[in-house]
Amino acid sequence: MNTTQKLSHTLKQELEALLGPEGVLTDPVALRAYDCDAYSPAKHFPDAVALPQDTEQVSAIIKLCNRLGVPFTPRGAGTGLSGGATAIEGGVVIATTRLNKILHIDVPNRRLVAQAGVVNTYLTKAVRAHHLHYAPDPSSQGACTVGGNVAENAGGPHTLKYGVTTNHVTGLTLVLPDGEIVALGGFEEETPGYDLVGLVVGAEGTMGIVTEVTVRLTPLPQAVRTLLAVFETIDQATQTVSDIIAAGVLPAALEMIDTFIIKACEEAFHLGFPSDAEAVLIIEVDGLEVGLDEEADQVRQIAFKNGAREVRQAKTELERALLWKARKQAFGALGRLGLSMVTHDGVIPRTKLPQVLREVRAIAQKYNLLVGNVFHAGDGNLHPNLMFDERDPEQVERVMQAGEEILKLCVDVGGSLTGEHGIGVEKMEAMTLLFSEADLDLMQKIKSVFNRNALCNPGKVLPTSKRCWETEHGPRLVRSVGRGAAV
Amino acid sequence: MNTTQKLSHTLKQELEALLGPEGVLTDPVALRAYDCDAYSPAKHFPDAVALPQDTEQVSAIIKLCNRLGVPFTPRGAGTGLSGGATAIEGGVVIATTRLNKILHIDVPNRRLVAQAGVVNTYLTKAVRAHHLHYAPDPSSQGACTVGGNVAENAGGPHTLKYGVTTNHVTGLTLVLPDGEIVALGGFEEETPGYDLVGLVVGAEGTMGIVTEVTVRLTPLPQAVRTLLAVFETIDQATQTVSDIIAAGVLPAALEMIDTFIIKACEEAFHLGFPSDAEAVLIIEVDGLEVGLDEEADQVRQIAFKNGAREVRQAKTELERALLWKARKQAFGALGRLGLSMVTHDGVIPRTKLPQVLREVRAIAQKYNLLVGNVFHAGDGNLHPNLMFDERDPEQVERVMQAGEEILKLCVDVGGSLTGEHGIGVEKMEAMTLLFSEADLDLMQKIKSVFNRNALCNPGKVLPTSKRCWETEHGPRLVRSVGRGAAV
Repeated sequence: MNTTQKLSHTLKQELEALLGPEGVLTDPVALRAYDCDAYSPAKHFPDAVALPQDTEQVSAIIKLCNRLGVPFTPRGAGTGLSGGATAIEGGVVIATTRLNKILHIDVPNRRLVAQAGVVNTYLTKAVRAHHLHYAPDPSSQGACTVGGNVAENAGGPHTLKYGVTTNHVTGLTLVLPDGEIVALGGFEEETPGYDLVGLVVGAEGTMGIVTEVTVRLTPLPQAVRTLLAVFETIDQATQTVSDIIAAGVLPAALEMIDTFIIKACEEAFHLGFPSDAEAVLIIEVDGLEVGLDEEADQVRQIAFKNGAREVRQAKTELERALLWKARKQAFGALGRLGLSMVTHDGVIPRTKLPQVLREVRAIAQKYNLLVGNVFHAGDGNLHPNLMFDERDPEQVERVMQAGEEILKLCVDVGGSLTGEHGIGVEKMEAMTLLFSEADLDLMQKIKSVFNRNALCNPGKVLPTSKRCWETEHGPRLVRSVGRGAAV
Repeated sequence: MNTTQKLSHTLKQELEALLGPEGVLTDPVALRAYDCDAYSPAKHFPDAVALPQDTEQVSAIIKLCNRLGVPFTPRGAGTGLSGGATAIEGGVVIATTRLNKILHIDVPNRRLVAQAGVVNTYLTKAVRAHHLHYAPDPSSQGACTVGGNVAENAGGPHTLKYGVTTNHVTGLTLVLPDGEIVALGGFEEETPGYDLVGLVVGAEGTMGIVTEVTVRLTPLPQAVRTLLAVFETIDQATQTVSDIIAAGVLPAALEMIDTFIIKACEEAFHLGFPSDAEAVLIIEVDGLEVGLDEEADQVRQIAFKNGAREVRQAKTELERALLWKARKQAFGALGRLGLSMVTHDGVIPRTKLPQVLREVRAIAQKYNLLVGNVFHAGDGNLHPNLMFDERDPEQVERVMQAGEEILKLCVDVGGSLTGEHGIGVEKMEAMTLLFSEADLDLMQKIKSVFNRNALCNPGKVLPTSKRCWETEHGPRLVRSVGRGAAV
């Protein structure tokens, strides 16, 4: 055996001593399932996958990795869209699959404590009988885990009214990159001292591994109205978005789907969507039953004032579910087209929507690419999807250049690189578009407090070089579709 | 001149060179106004007060302090309740008094950028014509500054529905403790990379000096109903609080005032409050006009079901203002009693309110002290006020012991040391009640990233020793009243 093989052997043996043989995967076939997340271009085999069942086991694995000098990468369900769960430098993937228990439910004080591997929707299922729910609802919520949501500060269609993950997490159990266990936050809304919960939420697993999460539970709305407004032009739809917000209405969700995606969804699901419309909005208002019809009416009038040719309202829970199916499974529908796809995640001031959507179309035309938009319009969180054939290097080059132009456009109008998918490995170098050297230095220093020997999820979030993204060769902004991507 | 005098002379000269003579205070009479904040026991004269007008001047002052090895302490309006703005180790107080400009208002995207010294209410005044407001409303809002609010993560009566400062700040300009200027966050809801905005909000000025703040603007509610529910017993009032929340109603505010405070307010303001009631609740619901009367009715019925003897509703804006006057100026009313006072700021799970209020009364009786409660009942954020005569050392000792028992009680029922007033110098040593050594070590490491030479607001937030609060002599939990305290 050479040194690498010896290390590998030791690693396997020691992991099995900690977790039993059923808690360790080293077979190459098994490891293939862990070579990337939903950002597939960054493919890297780990040396082993560890499947701990509690915080102490996570701590023991991390201490072992430190002793052997082996990097480790946390992983939830692998639905992430920026490569955060990929073992860039090999080593151990610490998967939270078996950290799947709900530990505590406090209905009167509206808190739930779950292990990090509990699937998002299971949180709501556990408390729905008490008319409560866990509000953040990424489209992948049937698969993604609360620990992964914490790592990426996940959003979803209802973040417009209810906020993203960080607004719903009050406490964390964190295993630091040296194996020490700390309790951050707690049950209260705010905890004294520095807000380390807020710091770790969205840190993309670079500050240690979260093993337990205390979340806020939110009352289910008494009533809901879900509307589908159909427009001849994108500008009519974006103006409706602006006008709804300006009128002081705060919809639970305000989502836009353009003609490209509508057609793909129709072909996939036959939902009866108007395939000739340029854009539709899914608008949901919720709250007390009293007054809600008036609020829905107000939304309807704003849509008609802006030229909506039709506004449908879901009359049953089934009709509502179908409207949401188009939105939440749009990416599955695109997968049927057999093309590869890049999904961008730029955020812009809401008032810039008409301008930016026009310019995104112009960029796609310039590079001769198909583009489809399905996104959180109310939040100004774009998801332009550029379609291409990844077997054609010339198309790959075009799609990358178009992607860079789109991200720069978002930053130029006062926006940002990502709304909910994270930086991961995908957009690290693009951070220099948004942050000064001093800003990034400060982030690096904070990262180093947690991650002194850089073994914890290495090669993520912060740019490795400080050179300008424009002149250097950045990471590939390419993602293939069909892995249940969550947007 | 001795060395200290020479340093003092150099400091004055160099500060005047940077800011002009009108930008520097060194006269002992002028410095007296800066020797404490609303937590008056911690009295410390600074060597100088600097009054910068922009970020660059703040940076220059901090670089000067670094060069001379002089500590510096940021200060807003000095309404803080835990001593955070006090120059414990002397040096330069950097007051934000002249950082008083609103720099940018973006109505469609609902953002406002203000210098740190702008008074809280001025933010709302600047945008009220657009039916917007800055939601966090500490009782001191007519005096306190947005920079101070950021430092202490200030709350207020309306945090139940609208959240605390950290929920309303999206961007900061921060001068680091070495004088470097960084831009954290921005206009968007969420910014890529680590959430340093969230980390700096509530850091009590120990991570640098915030000079500009980007805040979210919130639409003014279309309509408001403000109720006063009168109860014979405290338990009836606390049960009403629990039942309102359990019914799925989210009031904009849900405040409790007990008989001791009611009487003091009546004597001071003659508002017509029922002086024989054990407790009153101020309950405000807001939102769309349609349905709001039904929501107010629901609240009224819950109050009556729990034995309310009367529920009044403000019929005019004036009547509403009077109800709020009792709440927001309660501490002024207590000041008229001529006693000193300790205001505690414990947070507890809402379901523990009846038990904890009973135990707080028992603790006060045990130590033969008067106690009055006026607090954010909906948030479980207590403000028990212990009255005493600070000239009597024996009373001071009793009030301290009672205070420690109250804080321990809050922690023991699963609560926390502070809801909105911060740790400051007041509760540093009590942090060990809530956090393990590993937790505090991590906080200390993060603090050190920012504050390597410990010149920036030294002696705040984190305990200086790790010894147990119970066996060591903690800081005095004593505060005199009558400085416009904000609770």
